[in-house]
Amino acid sequence: MRRLKTLAVVGVGLIGGSFALALRRAGVATRIVGFDRDRAALEAAASLGAIDTAAESVSEAVQGADLVVIAVPVRSVGPVLHDVALAMNDDTIVTDVGSTKAEVVRVAREELRERFRRFVPGHPIAGRETSGVESALADLFRGARVVLTPVPETAADALDTVRSAWESVGGRVVVADAADHDRIFAAVSHLPHILSFALVSEIASRENGAELLGFAAGGFRDFTRIAASSPQMWRDVALQNREALLAEIDRYTARLAVFRDLIERGEASGLERLMTEARATRTAWAAPAKRSPSGE
Amino acid sequence: MRRLKTLAVVGVGLIGGSFALALRRAGVATRIVGFDRDRAALEAAASLGAIDTAAESVSEAVQGADLVVIAVPVRSVGPVLHDVALAMNDDTIVTDVGSTKAEVVRVAREELRERFRRFVPGHPIAGRETSGVESALADLFRGARVVLTPVPETAADALDTVRSAWESVGGRVVVADAADHDRIFAAVSHLPHILSFALVSEIASRENGAELLGFAAGGFRDFTRIAASSPQMWRDVALQNREALLAEIDRYTARLAVFRDLIERGEASGLERLMTEARATRTAWAAPAKRSPSGE
Repeated sequence: MRRLKTLAVVGVGLIGGSFALALRRAGVATRIVGFDRDRAALEAAASLGAIDTAAESVSEAVQGADLVVIAVPVRSVGPVLHDVALAMNDDTIVTDVGSTKAEVVRVAREELRERFRRFVPGHPIAGRETSGVESALADLFRGARVVLTPVPETAADALDTVRSAWESVGGRVVVADAADHDRIFAAVSHLPHILSFALVSEIASRENGAELLGFAAGGFRDFTRIAASSPQMWRDVALQNREALLAEIDRYTARLAVFRDLIERGEASGLERLMTEARATRTAWAAPAKRSPSGE
Repeated sequence: MRRLKTLAVVGVGLIGGSFALALRRAGVATRIVGFDRDRAALEAAASLGAIDTAAESVSEAVQGADLVVIAVPVRSVGPVLHDVALAMNDDTIVTDVGSTKAEVVRVAREELRERFRRFVPGHPIAGRETSGVESALADLFRGARVVLTPVPETAADALDTVRSAWESVGGRVVVADAADHDRIFAAVSHLPHILSFALVSEIASRENGAELLGFAAGGFRDFTRIAASSPQMWRDVALQNREALLAEIDRYTARLAVFRDLIERGEASGLERLMTEARATRTAWAAPAKRSPSGE
């Protein structure tokens, strides 16, 4: 891809920091400017070599940047875009990495107005259960899917640049409709996170929670790994993708009630049938290849 | 521990096969006789060196054995104990490895009658998501908890022998009440398995299930790993521990409804508070040491 003179990263956490490290290693970005509300995170990003320059504000970071990557919790994308709009020029390309897309597109249209065509909504399907720039990895996106959800007015050159940036760090880019994206991820990502948080939350609420956890083993560990994810991130994802997520919670609750009913009525064969089907689906999904070590 | 002249293993799957391999490696068992309804599994156990002799029946396996290990799905423990009762003598010690204990104790009392005192109910907290003797590992129990749930009439020498056998293969034995055991494992093991099966079952039931799974990533993978577990085993566990499991499903459903309500009402701070508490609980639980690579 064409070399970026200046890359601006707003939000130097796990994803922003990893993308900066990866683009630098790929030789794509000459200079990387970072900004973060959290001054300690910003300094850590600089000392870890993720960014060259720590800006004092979003405007300062954006000025003169070819590409601006917004990597903050989705609820903060709007306020950041507001500041970006004041400092970007007609050629600046802006993208984000949020786990929900329809609401981000709505907010971007509102904040960027006539420059909305320079905005490319994005979502790299990668993460770790630890957060912060200290967890950033230059190869976090190697083999990971990256979903871009442009709209009809999105400029072709902006889409191409963002696509190339992700491909240069090993991402496998797919283009999708924002609403489809949100429905799909409500089912395979947002719902499991809520379910995992809910299980640990329920145990944490009990007087004998510590005793229970003393007997928890590998199954519990895997099931609840995602309950160690960032509460701020997942709070925002849940609220931004509310409608699709509520629909998924309702579908899931109904399915769990089917299992409950089979158990209560002692329906061994019905229970085994559903479990066998689930096992076959899970096994077939995992079979084709080892997945990349990525989260959501 | 004292050397066992003959060990009988009824059910040479993952757990029975691993225990046999482990006791042999520990030098505890001189001769190991196996039996399995599944003739292919029995032959595989022999060719993998887990057993020396393939018996034609439970009775044949039990005759002359010092210790009989029953490692079959919990619903089959009763029928196996029926056959064991006909072939054991006054000194034979019998144990099991089932994931539920109260129902096993009830059935054992009924089937073994005056020899019920020779029965030591057990549950090693170890497993893998793959089943069958081909998945057996001699070090499966290294560092794993093993819960034994003797009753007042259980003979002290029988308990000691079973405890020593587990300790000789690296198990960390704890003694608990059977009903307490079942309530604890309903919460930290049986419930997560049902929740995981239910999620994959729900996705498997959809027309666009394959499309959804195409976007599933690391969080989904971990959350659903246990949905690849043995349907026969988990069907039986769910039905045998029905009362405690139904109570856990109801508690969980209520907690999920709290999350749903917070999401629907857009209660960002309440949602973040529950997630933060869950994250802290999960992180503290995982912190003390790397867990052993064990399932349930």
